[in-house]
Amino acid sequence: MNALRHTISLLSLSSFQLGRRMRSQHFRGFLLGTGLGLSTFATVTYAQAEAAKVNRKLNTSKFMAEPITDANALLEDADENMRHRMELMIMEIQAEFCRALESEEFSGQKFKVDRWMRKEGGGGVTCVLQDGDVFEKAGVNVSVVTGSLPPAAVQQMRARGKALTENVKLPFFASGVSAVIHPRNPHVPTIHFNYRYFEVQLPDGSKQWWFGGGTDLTPYYLDEADARHFHKTLKAACDEHDVSYYPKFKKWCDDYFHIKHRNESRGIGGIFFDDIDEPSQQEAFNFVKSCAKAVTPSYLPLVQKHKNAAYGDKERQWQLLRRGRYVEFNLIYDRGTKFGLYTPGARYESILMSLPLHARWEYMHEPQAKSKENALLQVLQNPKEWV
Amino acid sequence: MNALRHTISLLSLSSFQLGRRMRSQHFRGFLLGTGLGLSTFATVTYAQAEAAKVNRKLNTSKFMAEPITDANALLEDADENMRHRMELMIMEIQAEFCRALESEEFSGQKFKVDRWMRKEGGGGVTCVLQDGDVFEKAGVNVSVVTGSLPPAAVQQMRARGKALTENVKLPFFASGVSAVIHPRNPHVPTIHFNYRYFEVQLPDGSKQWWFGGGTDLTPYYLDEADARHFHKTLKAACDEHDVSYYPKFKKWCDDYFHIKHRNESRGIGGIFFDDIDEPSQQEAFNFVKSCAKAVTPSYLPLVQKHKNAAYGDKERQWQLLRRGRYVEFNLIYDRGTKFGLYTPGARYESILMSLPLHARWEYMHEPQAKSKENALLQVLQNPKEWV
Repeated sequence: MNALRHTISLLSLSSFQLGRRMRSQHFRGFLLGTGLGLSTFATVTYAQAEAAKVNRKLNTSKFMAEPITDANALLEDADENMRHRMELMIMEIQAEFCRALESEEFSGQKFKVDRWMRKEGGGGVTCVLQDGDVFEKAGVNVSVVTGSLPPAAVQQMRARGKALTENVKLPFFASGVSAVIHPRNPHVPTIHFNYRYFEVQLPDGSKQWWFGGGTDLTPYYLDEADARHFHKTLKAACDEHDVSYYPKFKKWCDDYFHIKHRNESRGIGGIFFDDIDEPSQQEAFNFVKSCAKAVTPSYLPLVQKHKNAAYGDKERQWQLLRRGRYVEFNLIYDRGTKFGLYTPGARYESILMSLPLHARWEYMHEPQAKSKENALLQVLQNPKEWV
Repeated sequence: MNALRHTISLLSLSSFQLGRRMRSQHFRGFLLGTGLGLSTFATVTYAQAEAAKVNRKLNTSKFMAEPITDANALLEDADENMRHRMELMIMEIQAEFCRALESEEFSGQKFKVDRWMRKEGGGGVTCVLQDGDVFEKAGVNVSVVTGSLPPAAVQQMRARGKALTENVKLPFFASGVSAVIHPRNPHVPTIHFNYRYFEVQLPDGSKQWWFGGGTDLTPYYLDEADARHFHKTLKAACDEHDVSYYPKFKKWCDDYFHIKHRNESRGIGGIFFDDIDEPSQQEAFNFVKSCAKAVTPSYLPLVQKHKNAAYGDKERQWQLLRRGRYVEFNLIYDRGTKFGLYTPGARYESILMSLPLHARWEYMHEPQAKSKENALLQVLQNPKEWV
């Protein structure tokens, strides 16, 4: 089951591109998450949903666009339907984060918002701010799709040792929010995060659900106070739920965002997890929501601290070289990206919004031994504990 | 066998990174190519080798560096040993092409030459000219390695349906020349070529050899006369040997260099082939040599024609966007690149020399309907016949 989960989760690391029509007859019997200890679920989103329900109308004006699912349908059963609760949460996180970034722009640049639907069902909201004063390229994507695993995914599963009849298609639901922010100033780090929820129906008819996600930081110059603040904020979000989470998910992050051919990390890590299906669906959701809510406070202070820092061509060129490494990781190793792109009909613009506006590759570049560039490289080659 | 061949050939599209010590005891009995109609083999390389043999010394000064194999050993049996004949040929092609490119530089920039050896055996000569006036990044690589296929390659074979005992390692020899040239002026196209020779020993003890290769062009602006000249030159090289080659290998090229997620070709094609093991080893070599010899005449006139053409920021930005597509193809689809990078101990600097100095990704970029940029895109989406 783990191999299957991992494979399906990969579908969504960048965006969720497979789908039949959401809430189609085919999937009506496939919803999970009813009656799972909802007494503990007293969050703003839920309260808002409850309040709005009275008027039979959800106030969607705070979102970047209308949700993918009909707003009334979202309201109807958000308290008992995890798909809908998740959709409300990721729409909220997307808007919160986009507005926070916009507020840092000097000249009032705003995100361009594309709401897209797939003919097979489901869709997404892709928000991109490009060529800003502070953010050279920032993408924040929400997707909510249903579909069935294509043969390529099945093949992937088989390569991982999961015995399944060839060409069997598994119905699934995937939703999530993901973002990659590439600032202009080389002293402001790049951030990536992704939080996602899945349901899948196995050939024997059983149904499974799980959450995955993570947040990680890619600085161009190492500021140890930044690294500590970032990791501390993520750790606090984890510790609220289980003190074993942060150390486990910090290591998972270091292992995942590793550029193997260069034997260096993409950045200074953060947290990364998958297959979260305990202690209960509601508690797992609460954990994921805490992590997602921690993104803005983990990152915004770093933007504010460095966005006016002086830099020159030397720092810019180094930033571009590191962005080349970012491209290498995303296109060679990130299974979500690769998997998404191999999917026929994928919305590649949403998947590839993670790529920087500019990147550079120099043959045999090596920073000088005592330089700040080399100090970063040392940490990328030897991941550290920051809290 | 075809699946196996294709898999192994992929190892070398960029460079050949696996190896045990060349000419080790293990491989002595593994050489092929003796007694194959050498009377038809009267080329310059052979003649030079013959002449040099008299003095028991090969004149290597015309090469970019000393060959990987000991020069005397190369001479001893170049007439009966295809490994050695191939090595002489690719060293010659590398030097010929590098010198031709250098002669186009305005300020006399030269290739930086790295001759490298792997501790496992074999090695290569990597030549890179970076930040030239005419060539922004030009890489020309020769590799000559022996080794055994690692479990990952075996896995790859299995995915392709080849039934082999897991973890079996197959001894092989791989040599080739490959190059990617990214000019600065957007009116000068990028060229890529690769010519390679393999030997492999199957588990049943049988030995196989084959050639592969190709040359293809990636313009940023379409010049139909250029496209015709380029394809005509390649076709002439093919036609010398078999008139069925060009149409077959032209199509193979269009099929291979296809960016699937964008449904567009990387460039305007050329030729691409693999598994060439007929009509005889010598004739196959002659064909590959003709193709390799056609590279400079297919490309240099285009450099000379356009290197002084006027251009502005608009053309530069479009070139950078197209280079982003080049990166996408090389890192996502090019199996040689991926395979090379997944190989422990790979010389990634030689593999990634194919990446441009700069690349750009814009969200949802679309050229205007009647622009020159769009005219190129139309051809990339609908490959044409040029001769």
